[in-house]
Amino acid sequence: MRTPAQNAELALLLEVASTPKPGNVDRHRDHADLRFEHFLAGAVGAQNGLQLAAAGEPLGHAFERAVAGMAEQRGGNTQFGALHLLVPLVRTATGEFSPAAAKRLVRDTTVEDAANFYRAFEHVDVFVSDPPADADDLDVRRGRRAIPTLEARELTLYDIMKMSAPTDGVAKEWTTGFERSFAGAERLRRLDGPVTDRAAQVFLELLADEPDTFVEKHHGREVAEEASESAQAYLRRKADPEKLADQFVKEGINPGTTADIVAAALFIALERGVKV
Amino acid sequence: MRTPAQNAELALLLEVASTPKPGNVDRHRDHADLRFEHFLAGAVGAQNGLQLAAAGEPLGHAFERAVAGMAEQRGGNTQFGALHLLVPLVRTATGEFSPAAAKRLVRDTTVEDAANFYRAFEHVDVFVSDPPADADDLDVRRGRRAIPTLEARELTLYDIMKMSAPTDGVAKEWTTGFERSFAGAERLRRLDGPVTDRAAQVFLELLADEPDTFVEKHHGREVAEEASESAQAYLRRKADPEKLADQFVKEGINPGTTADIVAAALFIALERGVKV
Repeated sequence: MRTPAQNAELALLLEVASTPKPGNVDRHRDHADLRFEHFLAGAVGAQNGLQLAAAGEPLGHAFERAVAGMAEQRGGNTQFGALHLLVPLVRTATGEFSPAAAKRLVRDTTVEDAANFYRAFEHVDVFVSDPPADADDLDVRRGRRAIPTLEARELTLYDIMKMSAPTDGVAKEWTTGFERSFAGAERLRRLDGPVTDRAAQVFLELLADEPDTFVEKHHGREVAEEASESAQAYLRRKADPEKLADQFVKEGINPGTTADIVAAALFIALERGVKV
Repeated sequence: MRTPAQNAELALLLEVASTPKPGNVDRHRDHADLRFEHFLAGAVGAQNGLQLAAAGEPLGHAFERAVAGMAEQRGGNTQFGALHLLVPLVRTATGEFSPAAAKRLVRDTTVEDAANFYRAFEHVDVFVSDPPADADDLDVRRGRRAIPTLEARELTLYDIMKMSAPTDGVAKEWTTGFERSFAGAERLRRLDGPVTDRAAQVFLELLADEPDTFVEKHHGREVAEEASESAQAYLRRKADPEKLADQFVKEGINPGTTADIVAAALFIALERGVKV
C-alpha cells in the first residue's frame, strides 16, 4: 500500500506524464531549460518533506523541506505550487479526508508557518507578480527578510493566502477548502481510460472553467481569459488538443496553476481508490 | 539530499523516461497493456522495499517487498529485473560502493534470501524460460512451492544466480560484480547532454555489445543476436534510433534485460554525482 506521501509523489509524476496539457511540460514536450526529467527528480526530491507533512510536522516546515528537496535538480522551479497544495492535503489524508477538514487545517496555520513559506522562496526562483505598493514588505521575493514584518503584524500562513487569493489560484484553493482540487478528483474518478488521459482532459476542463493565474501573472488578465476561451472552444468542438498545445507553446502560454490543481486532484483521486 | 533508496527510484523513473530505447516502453511509447504510467507507479511502489535494502534488511526480503509494492498497478511486471539489480546496489551504496563490495554482498546471501526471491514471483507474472529438464523443482514459476527444494539442497540466492547466469543477463550481473552496470554508469558520466538522452545512448551501446537475454527467452538466440547486430549498425552509421524503435515494436523485440542494466547504471551514476 502506498502511503499518502507516496501517493502525493505519484500524483506529481502522473501530472507531468499526462499529455497533452497545453502549454506545460509533459511527457511529449520539454521547455528549453525545463525538461521532463527535472520534474521526475523534483517529485522524488519532495518525498522527505511530504513525509514530514504526513507525520504531523507543521505545514510551513514540511513545505519548506519539500521545496528544498524538489529544488535538487537543474531545471529550477518544477512543482512549487503543486507542493503548496499537496502538503496540507497529505496531512488531511492521514485523518478524515474532506474539504472541511482541509479548511480547518489551513485555518490553524501559524506565523511560523508563514515564515517557513517565505523561507521556501529562497530555494528556487518562483515567478510572482509585484505586490501592491503598500505591501512591499511582504513581497515573497524578500524570503526570510520578510519575517520581521510577518511577526510584527502577526500574519499566519492562512492570512497570507487570503491576501493572495484574489490573484493566485493556489492561494484561492487554500481559502475555499481546495474546492477545484476535490472537484477535479471527482471528475477523474468518473472519466474512463488511462489515468493520464483523464488528467489531460481534466486539465483542459479546469482551464476552460477559470483563467489561469500563472498565465495572468505572465501576460495579464486578457491573455489568461483568451487562453480559457481557447480551451472552451476545443472542448466544445471536441478538437484535438495537440494543436492547442502547439499554439500555447508558440505564444509562451503556460497554465501552471491549472497543472498544480491537476496534481492535487490526482492525489485526492489516488487516495480515494482510483487505480493506475 | 536524496537517499540511496530515492536515487534508486529516480533511476527507475529516468530509465523509463529515456527515449528512444528501441523495443521498450519509454516516454514516447506505450505497449498495448503496459503503459508508461504503470512504470511510474511501479517505481513509487518499490520505495518501501528499497528502503528496507538500505536499512540492512536481508536482500531477499527487501526484494520481495519491493516487488510487492511495484506490482500495485495494473500493468503487471514493470521493473522486476531492475529491482533485482537495484536492491543489492542500494545496500552496497550505504557503505563502500564498489564492484568488489557488491560481489561480496551477494556472495553472502542465504537460503532464506533464495526463498524470498521465489516468493517474489508470486506477486507478478514474469516471463521466464522453461528450466532444464533436471531442474523442474527449481522453476521460479513454482513460487514458494520450490522452497523445500531450496532448503533440501541448501541453495542460496547467489547459487540460484550462478545457475541462471548463462541464460539471464541480470543473474550474470550478480555473479560478475555488476560489471556492465558499473561500466554503463561510467559511460553515462562521460557523455554530455540531458541524462535521459545519455541513458538512451548507453542502452543502444549495451544492446550492441551483448545480446539481450530477455529477447532470447522470447524469440531465441538468433533473433537476440540479430537485434544486437541492428544496434551495432545504427551506432556505426549514427542512424536515428527512432527508426530502430519502430522496427523493434513491429517485430515484438523487447530488450528488457538491457533496460534493467540501464536502470542500475543510472542509479550508480546518480550516487556518483551525475546531476539531473
